[in-house]
Amino acid sequence: MLYGGIEAGGTKFVCAVGSGPGQILAETRFPTTLPAETLAKAVQFFVEQQKLFGPLTSVGIAAFGPLDLDPKSPSFGEIAATPKPNWAHYNIKRTVEQALGKPVVLDTDVNGAALGEWRWGAGQGLDCLVYLTIGTGVGGGLLMNGRLAHGLLHPEMGHILLPHDRTVDPYPGGCPFHGDCLEGLAAGASMEKRWGQRAETLPPDHPAWELEAGYIAAALMNYIVTISPQRLILGGGVMAMPGLLPMVRSKVRALLNNYVLSPHILDDQLLEQYIVAPGLGNQAGVLGALALAEQAVV
Amino acid sequence: MLYGGIEAGGTKFVCAVGSGPGQILAETRFPTTLPAETLAKAVQFFVEQQKLFGPLTSVGIAAFGPLDLDPKSPSFGEIAATPKPNWAHYNIKRTVEQALGKPVVLDTDVNGAALGEWRWGAGQGLDCLVYLTIGTGVGGGLLMNGRLAHGLLHPEMGHILLPHDRTVDPYPGGCPFHGDCLEGLAAGASMEKRWGQRAETLPPDHPAWELEAGYIAAALMNYIVTISPQRLILGGGVMAMPGLLPMVRSKVRALLNNYVLSPHILDDQLLEQYIVAPGLGNQAGVLGALALAEQAVV
Repeated sequence: MLYGGIEAGGTKFVCAVGSGPGQILAETRFPTTLPAETLAKAVQFFVEQQKLFGPLTSVGIAAFGPLDLDPKSPSFGEIAATPKPNWAHYNIKRTVEQALGKPVVLDTDVNGAALGEWRWGAGQGLDCLVYLTIGTGVGGGLLMNGRLAHGLLHPEMGHILLPHDRTVDPYPGGCPFHGDCLEGLAAGASMEKRWGQRAETLPPDHPAWELEAGYIAAALMNYIVTISPQRLILGGGVMAMPGLLPMVRSKVRALLNNYVLSPHILDDQLLEQYIVAPGLGNQAGVLGALALAEQAVV
Repeated sequence: MLYGGIEAGGTKFVCAVGSGPGQILAETRFPTTLPAETLAKAVQFFVEQQKLFGPLTSVGIAAFGPLDLDPKSPSFGEIAATPKPNWAHYNIKRTVEQALGKPVVLDTDVNGAALGEWRWGAGQGLDCLVYLTIGTGVGGGLLMNGRLAHGLLHPEMGHILLPHDRTVDPYPGGCPFHGDCLEGLAAGASMEKRWGQRAETLPPDHPAWELEAGYIAAALMNYIVTISPQRLILGGGVMAMPGLLPMVRSKVRALLNNYVLSPHILDDQLLEQYIVAPGLGNQAGVLGALALAEQAVV
């Protein structure tokens, strides 16, 4: 089976045709401009690829959000109220469905990444996992009992509220909605505002990283006590700083303080398998979209 | 089909035989003493009831925790490390299974309550719900994609970390593990320590309640952005204070601050159906256990 995948980001679109890692037959990328124009380019790409490789079974779209993912809603398939000009209330799912005549599965970029990691990456064989990306912003995807989380809407894990000791960290937080939520405290954009330089230029021994690890660890503790996932996968540009992931792990253990008596928390080697880096690297986005496409036929 | 249910609490056990609300044929309750003695009384009750009403299909146990609920673990079915004397590492599931020769489904009291509310109470027809009880302690159950949450272990939602402004609330928190987690700040026991009197004796206009509503609302916001549940059900003795539930609702909406643009948050009537009181009243515990028993045959 051949699938189409669209990684629909706020600044760029990546489209691919294939069936999994190492099996991507064609890929293209272009900037995100006006919705109709951007989606026309994506559709055009798939039309041409079908001439070369034969018909697609379905298309997956892993998109920036928020999204309306409720099949009973009249606006199902729309990008909901987003600050991105012209994209609010654009029905990205229906547009692709009608243009290609194929089933389309839409989900958030982070739910897509969670599914891709479950299918081919660091979450294979698990029933319940959290994928968190800490980059310019912070977002999370949740797979539970074998399916992605859509209850009311979809998770927005970056906006979890956390303890914030202003005597240690007087930065008020950079989230326009919640001030000092996780994203407001720990996103790359917030780090840059707090320290006056880009996160990746802060040296590994800068106090920024201990503070950062503490916020991420507090968020992970909250996800653990709330969901009890089998694994947490941490991606995004900020997580690329060497030493950050081990620091997060040890702070999670310290915060839980022997309350969750699982060997996956208490044993060093098992903890390294419990809080992990993604397995799919820089193809995570588009592979997530292909994994969504597969869902159309399961 | 006839089921047995055990509500295994830290201070009392309630055992019942029946098949749902209004269909409880017999019930007994006795104090929680030593494990073998307490379980022998429960087994005795079921043996006698089977003589009267015929064989039970299965037994559900909704127990205080933490519990080992991993079928692959050698200690599956045990009460894990609990401060309660003599109960740590007692295999409550195997004891009942062997004594009665029936399948036994064990889960946490709060997962049981979540399942009972989903089956017969305030969560009927939903795919994803959170049940939170705020009494002497705070605990939460999670049903997602139609099944209870067991990933690593089980949820321990009462121990979520929250913002705590010590200039407003200097009380350091009463949780022996985490200090000022939700349970440490908002459980009945913590309210009593902070205010020097039992929560139910604090008048409705006491500032305690505004503070309490704020902590509960912050926790609910975190569950909402993490899981995106379709409903949150709030039980427990503390929630019985008139006016508290409406205050929690309006604070959840204020905290989310137009970020989760669902009518269930924004519309007053829908919000009243989104954050609700339990539907099963004082039978919630034992009905949860019966709902667990049903799971043995689905």
